[in-house]
Amino acid sequence: MGSVKTKRMPRAVREQQMLDAAVRIFGRRGYTAASMDEIAELAGVSKPLVYLYLNSKEDLFTACIRREASALTAAVRSGVRPGLPADRQLWEGLCAFFTHTARNPEGWTVLHLQARTHGEPFAAEVDAMREGIVAFVTQLIDVAAREARPQALGCARPGRHPQDPELPERETAGLAEALVGAAESLAAWANTTPGVSAGQAAATLMNFAWAGLGNLMEGRPWSPPDHD
Amino acid sequence: MGSVKTKRMPRAVREQQMLDAAVRIFGRRGYTAASMDEIAELAGVSKPLVYLYLNSKEDLFTACIRREASALTAAVRSGVRPGLPADRQLWEGLCAFFTHTARNPEGWTVLHLQARTHGEPFAAEVDAMREGIVAFVTQLIDVAAREARPQALGCARPGRHPQDPELPERETAGLAEALVGAAESLAAWANTTPGVSAGQAAATLMNFAWAGLGNLMEGRPWSPPDHD
Repeated sequence: MGSVKTKRMPRAVREQQMLDAAVRIFGRRGYTAASMDEIAELAGVSKPLVYLYLNSKEDLFTACIRREASALTAAVRSGVRPGLPADRQLWEGLCAFFTHTARNPEGWTVLHLQARTHGEPFAAEVDAMREGIVAFVTQLIDVAAREARPQALGCARPGRHPQDPELPERETAGLAEALVGAAESLAAWANTTPGVSAGQAAATLMNFAWAGLGNLMEGRPWSPPDHD
Repeated sequence: MGSVKTKRMPRAVREQQMLDAAVRIFGRRGYTAASMDEIAELAGVSKPLVYLYLNSKEDLFTACIRREASALTAAVRSGVRPGLPADRQLWEGLCAFFTHTARNPEGWTVLHLQARTHGEPFAAEVDAMREGIVAFVTQLIDVAAREARPQALGCARPGRHPQDPELPERETAGLAEALVGAAESLAAWANTTPGVSAGQAAATLMNFAWAGLGNLMEGRPWSPPDHD
């Protein structure tokens, strides 16, 4: 009795092992097809212990989404140094984003594909994270627009008052949505295309986004053709 | 017996009614939560008739994905006139895309969110559609790069041979992925943000994308900073 001594681990460590295994299995199989047996086996624990710690498949999935969302947001925020010019901040943020998604492909799949389609409460968790990132990017674009303002005045279009903001609020919000959507798409592409590094994905998007945003901020939008 | 005459409709018409109802319910509830009872009720037919025509919930969902994917692809392709300059083609394609997704919000939700996360065969259906659209955009970017070539030669960077393609294949593929991802994100945003029209979403993305692509094609990429 009690002669076989099992290794005792702190609960927090065990829980992280379960979450590691769960993210991997959810990411590969999807929420519906993932089995608690397989998750327990990969974590090296019994299935009852998973239920004891994480309660249910639903709660386990929610815990995965929360952990992966926090890790991604933290990686992006800590990759950006606030004192730098806006383009440098965006560049560093993109590098941090693509590095994180390349290192955690299953975590990215859970956030980007799985979490958004299984209704509440999962969708709300990941929507909150995405809104935080969109707000962060919106702020960067605003800062960049203010930085560009002095140069922009020289080429302001006739009839536009120099004090007018170069980019109205709705336009900035749309640009941030476009940039975040482009980053999501490129992360999935980079993770499934052999030989595309995080740095290359970041450079492609920076090139695409910044050269475009730079033009906009200096008052050189693309002009839609007259209706014909 | 036979005294109550039910209206007879051709099978094809009935089937379209069922698909209309199914797209609406799948788009609102998600694949798992959608009920065949609700779909039959909304279509105004009996549940056995839905099973008789479409076989199973899985087959019904696949039929929805196929129909919505074909409709979206057809709308984008027919919106673009091939003889125009590349930026005009892209503009027309974006207008057609955002108009279609605004008019068919549930169809877009089925394609963009539902279909990609429930494993095979659903994911394969929508991946094929997305690959077709990415290929179409890649081709537009290639055409644009060739159109821009003559002007680009004047500002080719030292050491770059004038015959070199301005945008290598992998770069073009990445840019197309970025553009399609941005469009997907903006479609979801426009559909959930009051007062954003299809034309505004198209103009925001065109501005973002074209001013950026235009710079790239004329040999003015954003330069990543030296490592510090």
